Amino acid sequence: MKPWRVLARRVVLERPPWLTVGEQDVELPDGTVLKGFNWIETRPFAVVIPLLDGDRTILVRSFKLGVGTTSLSLPAGYLEAGEAPLAGAKRELLEETGCEASEWIPLGRYVVDGNYGSGAMHAFIAKGARQVREPNSGDHEEQELITVPFAEALAKLRAGEMAQLSTAAALGLAAIALR
Amino acid sequence: MKPWRVLARRVVLERPPWLTVGEQDVELPDGTVLKGFNWIETRPFAVVIPLLDGDRTILVRSFKLGVGTTSLSLPAGYLEAGEAPLAGAKRELLEETGCEASEWIPLGRYVVDGNYGSGAMHAFIAKGARQVREPNSGDHEEQELITVPFAEALAKLRAGEMAQLSTAAALGLAAIALR
Repeated sequence: MKPWRVLARRVVLERPPWLTVGEQDVELPDGTVLKGFNWIETRPFAVVIPLLDGDRTILVRSFKLGVGTTSLSLPAGYLEAGEAPLAGAKRELLEETGCEASEWIPLGRYVVDGNYGSGAMHAFIAKGARQVREPNSGDHEEQELITVPFAEALAKLRAGEMAQLSTAAALGLAAIALR
Repeated sequence: MKPWRVLARRVVLERPPWLTVGEQDVELPDGTVLKGFNWIETRPFAVVIPLLDGDRTILVRSFKLGVGTTSLSLPAGYLEAGEAPLAGAKRELLEETGCEASEWIPLGRYVVDGNYGSGAMHAFIAKGARQVREPNSGDHEEQELITVPFAEALAKLRAGEMAQLSTAAALGLAAIALR
C-alpha cells in the first residue's frame, strides 16, 4: 500500500512549547492532490500503569481542563525535550506518585490522531513499584492518589470513571498484556 | 475537588469543519490565574469493534497521514454535524465494511486530550455483525479489510501493528468488556 507524498508543508500557528498547527499539500497514490490538509504537533507523553504488590495499581483523581470535570487517570506527563520515553515515564511516576519500579514493560507508541498526528503516547507497565518518597507532581492540578486492585481499575474504566482516551488505551493495553 | 473557572475564551485559528484552536484564561481553585491556556476542538468520532460469528472482527489496513505509515485500525470515522454517536457508528460500519449488526454495546466516551480537549472518541461493540453490501468508505485512503479472530486482533495490537491511540483504546475496552 503506497504512502501519500507530502508536496509542501507550512506552519500556520505556533504556541511553543505546547502546540504547532500547520497545513500540508499531499499527493495521493492515484495522483490526486489535496491542498491544505491540517497537521497538529503536540508534545509526546508517557503513561504509566504501576503495579504494586503484584496486583494493585495507582490512579490519580484530578480536574482536567480538557475534560471539564474531575475524573480518574493513570500517572502521565509530557516528555521533556530530547527525553527518551522510558526516562520520561520513570520521572513522571516518581514525581506523581513517589514510586520507583523494578521492571518496566513497554506497551508501545500510539499516534494520537491518525489524520493530523497530534503527538504520541508511550505506555509502560511499572512492575514491582514501591513508594520511595512523597509525590510532588509540580502540575497545576490538585491531585488525589488512590491505590486499588488492578481488576477494580478495569471496573472503574468500564463504569465511566476515566474520561481520557490515553488512560483508556494504556489500561486496556495493560489488561491485554497481563492476562 | 473544585473545577477550574474559565474567565475568558478566544478563538485563535479556525479551519472549518475540521479544527478550531483557541486560548482561555482560567482561575485555579487556589486563586491563581493562568492566561492563554490552549484549547483544541476537532470533530468527535466513532470507533467500532465488529464481531462476526461470535469471535471474529474486521480490521482496516490503510496509510494514514498522521501516522506516516500503513497500519491496522478499527472501522471509524467522524460524526456528522448533529449526528448521535450510535448513528455515526452504524453509518461508519456500513460504509467501511458493508456490515450491519444485531446488537450494539456502548463502551463510553473518551476525551482525546485531557489538557486541550481535542474532540472525543465514542466506542461501540457491534455484535452479530454480517455483511449486507459492498464497502464504500468514501475516504481518501485506499483500504484493505481483513477478518481475523478477536484474539488475533489483540495479538496484532500487542505486536505493534496498530499505530493509532483510538484503535488501541477501543480494542482494549472491548477486551475488558468481553472477557
